[in-house]
Amino acid sequence: MVATVEDPSYPIVPKEELTRRHVALRRTLPGLDLDLMLVATNPNLFYLTGSMQEGLLAVSDRTPQPTYFVKRVYERGRSESVLDDVRPSVGPSKLCEALGIGPVKRLGLELDAVPYAWAERLRKGLGGEGMELVDVSTAIRGLRAAKSPWEVARIEEAARQGDAAMERVAEVLREGMTELEVAIEVEVAMRKEGWEGFTRMHRFGSEMFLGSVLSGPSAARPTFHQAVMGGWGLSPAMPHGASRRKVRRGEPVAVDVTGIHMGYVSDETRTFSVGPLSEELRNGQRTAQEILIAVVRELRPGVLNTRPWELAAALARELGVAEGFMGVGRERMRFIGHGVGLELDELPVLAEGSPGTVPDGATVAIEPKLVYTGVGVLGEENTYVVAKDGTRQLTRARPGPIEV
Amino acid sequence: MVATVEDPSYPIVPKEELTRRHVALRRTLPGLDLDLMLVATNPNLFYLTGSMQEGLLAVSDRTPQPTYFVKRVYERGRSESVLDDVRPSVGPSKLCEALGIGPVKRLGLELDAVPYAWAERLRKGLGGEGMELVDVSTAIRGLRAAKSPWEVARIEEAARQGDAAMERVAEVLREGMTELEVAIEVEVAMRKEGWEGFTRMHRFGSEMFLGSVLSGPSAARPTFHQAVMGGWGLSPAMPHGASRRKVRRGEPVAVDVTGIHMGYVSDETRTFSVGPLSEELRNGQRTAQEILIAVVRELRPGVLNTRPWELAAALARELGVAEGFMGVGRERMRFIGHGVGLELDELPVLAEGSPGTVPDGATVAIEPKLVYTGVGVLGEENTYVVAKDGTRQLTRARPGPIEV
Repeated sequence: MVATVEDPSYPIVPKEELTRRHVALRRTLPGLDLDLMLVATNPNLFYLTGSMQEGLLAVSDRTPQPTYFVKRVYERGRSESVLDDVRPSVGPSKLCEALGIGPVKRLGLELDAVPYAWAERLRKGLGGEGMELVDVSTAIRGLRAAKSPWEVARIEEAARQGDAAMERVAEVLREGMTELEVAIEVEVAMRKEGWEGFTRMHRFGSEMFLGSVLSGPSAARPTFHQAVMGGWGLSPAMPHGASRRKVRRGEPVAVDVTGIHMGYVSDETRTFSVGPLSEELRNGQRTAQEILIAVVRELRPGVLNTRPWELAAALARELGVAEGFMGVGRERMRFIGHGVGLELDELPVLAEGSPGTVPDGATVAIEPKLVYTGVGVLGEENTYVVAKDGTRQLTRARPGPIEV
Repeated sequence: MVATVEDPSYPIVPKEELTRRHVALRRTLPGLDLDLMLVATNPNLFYLTGSMQEGLLAVSDRTPQPTYFVKRVYERGRSESVLDDVRPSVGPSKLCEALGIGPVKRLGLELDAVPYAWAERLRKGLGGEGMELVDVSTAIRGLRAAKSPWEVARIEEAARQGDAAMERVAEVLREGMTELEVAIEVEVAMRKEGWEGFTRMHRFGSEMFLGSVLSGPSAARPTFHQAVMGGWGLSPAMPHGASRRKVRRGEPVAVDVTGIHMGYVSDETRTFSVGPLSEELRNGQRTAQEILIAVVRELRPGVLNTRPWELAAALARELGVAEGFMGVGRERMRFIGHGVGLELDELPVLAEGSPGTVPDGATVAIEPKLVYTGVGVLGEENTYVVAKDGTRQLTRARPGPIEV
């Protein structure tokens, strides 16, 4: 890591890391049959340049190397990215000339993420009435799913933030505190460890602050997220996370947090309580942990993405908790885990019907949760790296239920 | 406000507020000449339904009233929205039948915000090879620019959060604290006042956590934002806001924060220092305040959106600070303020070349800033409501420089 700021700890993405990614990206180009790929969304721009300064990354097998055109701020993009070819941006009509390539017939864009009007403006600017737009988002997300050791180390740093948050909750949680008061303690603990500010999500319309402190029935209240827990939040304009509800004795308090270090996300959930949980709820917690352990034991590169969910659902039935497993009724989710990386909802998706297999180096969060409507949610979640030489747990707070 | 949660303070958007908005939206329909408008992005969905649960709001002059189709979570959308017609979602192929309307030839979507592939899937699902897509985002953003008294009251609530943050900085700021340590104090102060979690922005690729605590030269370091100040942040993956740089004696410390209450944003900046600023910097601060006062004096409904910038730029030249006014060199910004509301970068944009005029009820942040490269930024920013009966300041922290 090289200092680019007065503060010598400001990190940059190393050259060998970017080189590895671009070698892999080049291998996808023949299959996509593109004349030009232009990458513009923040997570992919950062993944492929090491910078998030506004601009376009141009990739083509007709050019010797990727070119990062920076619109704002050029000097900053230049200092943050170790790519060899970083330039001030040019208008779309000058782009082919600047790259020394002929007219573009098939243009690759991140079609599931760039705005409609933005893509159409770019197509027109490049001169293309008949120009075909091709999605490249799926291909890049596929590459991102397999992490390098450097990336895994970033996620481990993020996981330390989540671990610190859980320690802090164990210290401060008291009956009568509001969820918001507990959440503030969580946020401070994570910021002190370098939490970067908010959690990026890929799915259109999904957004997330930090995670959630959800007491009793709040946790059993889902929201627009593709997740089991939701919480009220402070208003319908930010409908997730902590509310002003007060924590009561003997109810489960779910703390679900996303660490973030250099953009990389970890995901971790623990169950707390003030005073003991009932026998039934303790059993629920044990059952969720049993499912977690069973699913993790079967994780390895090459496993079908549907397999962990099938295993978890079968176990839930066998253990008599099918009814509230991963939600109830119409809002029940049919997944057991998801990739984490530069976004919280990364590939692979470990769900019913999910195509593909777990790649070597996948970092996944596994999160069995049991919903007791009107009462709360029991469960536990950790982030793991799945590799040929074994699966390793990255989040390391002590298991719940953590009674204070 | 009606309680929809155990916590009786959980607010909802009142019926008369939604009615007013839909009456205004209906008036835009003849000009757009649509068969159907489908609204899907979070800020507009909340503006027009009072909820942000995933779904589509259907508006057409062929139906008696707007219909909110909620995909996830229906019961929650139903309880948060006071619209009369809230239903579980149906697939796009069943949408026209569900609404009782014939085939759609012109479909209105928020084309500057919805993903390309999402819009194409929707068009195909609705059955439309030859279906024309029409942008409705500009029309809705135009309506949103003029706030009701209820909305202004929400922004005033948000402004109280920012005011509390400034008070807190005055209490805790010390030489040798890192920007991050000061930022944590700001964040806690704002969360205690109900800050909701992060700041929504409209522009593609723009994102923002809370605002910034930027010491000395950090403030003079712009980033991808359309803003004068940027800061380093903690890594190039979140390249704005507080870094680990330590605050030094005698340098300006810029604190720029966005309050958020029920989704509504306020924007406020104050300049602090540990020990006195130099004579030159104090003069810079006074000049920025002079420009702020002069611009605000001229604000009224109907003023051209270009006028405040022209006035500010002319004054900066006259007062001899043109060089660093709103940035330096290539990164200089040619604006003096912007609307705030459900997004931080709302209409009107008070900038060179900006079309239109300031609407009655506009809430705008005015933010003259002087950049001294390598030294820091001097300036002040407040949020105002501009109405026929006068302009009123909503952010009320005491003016800077605040010396501790």
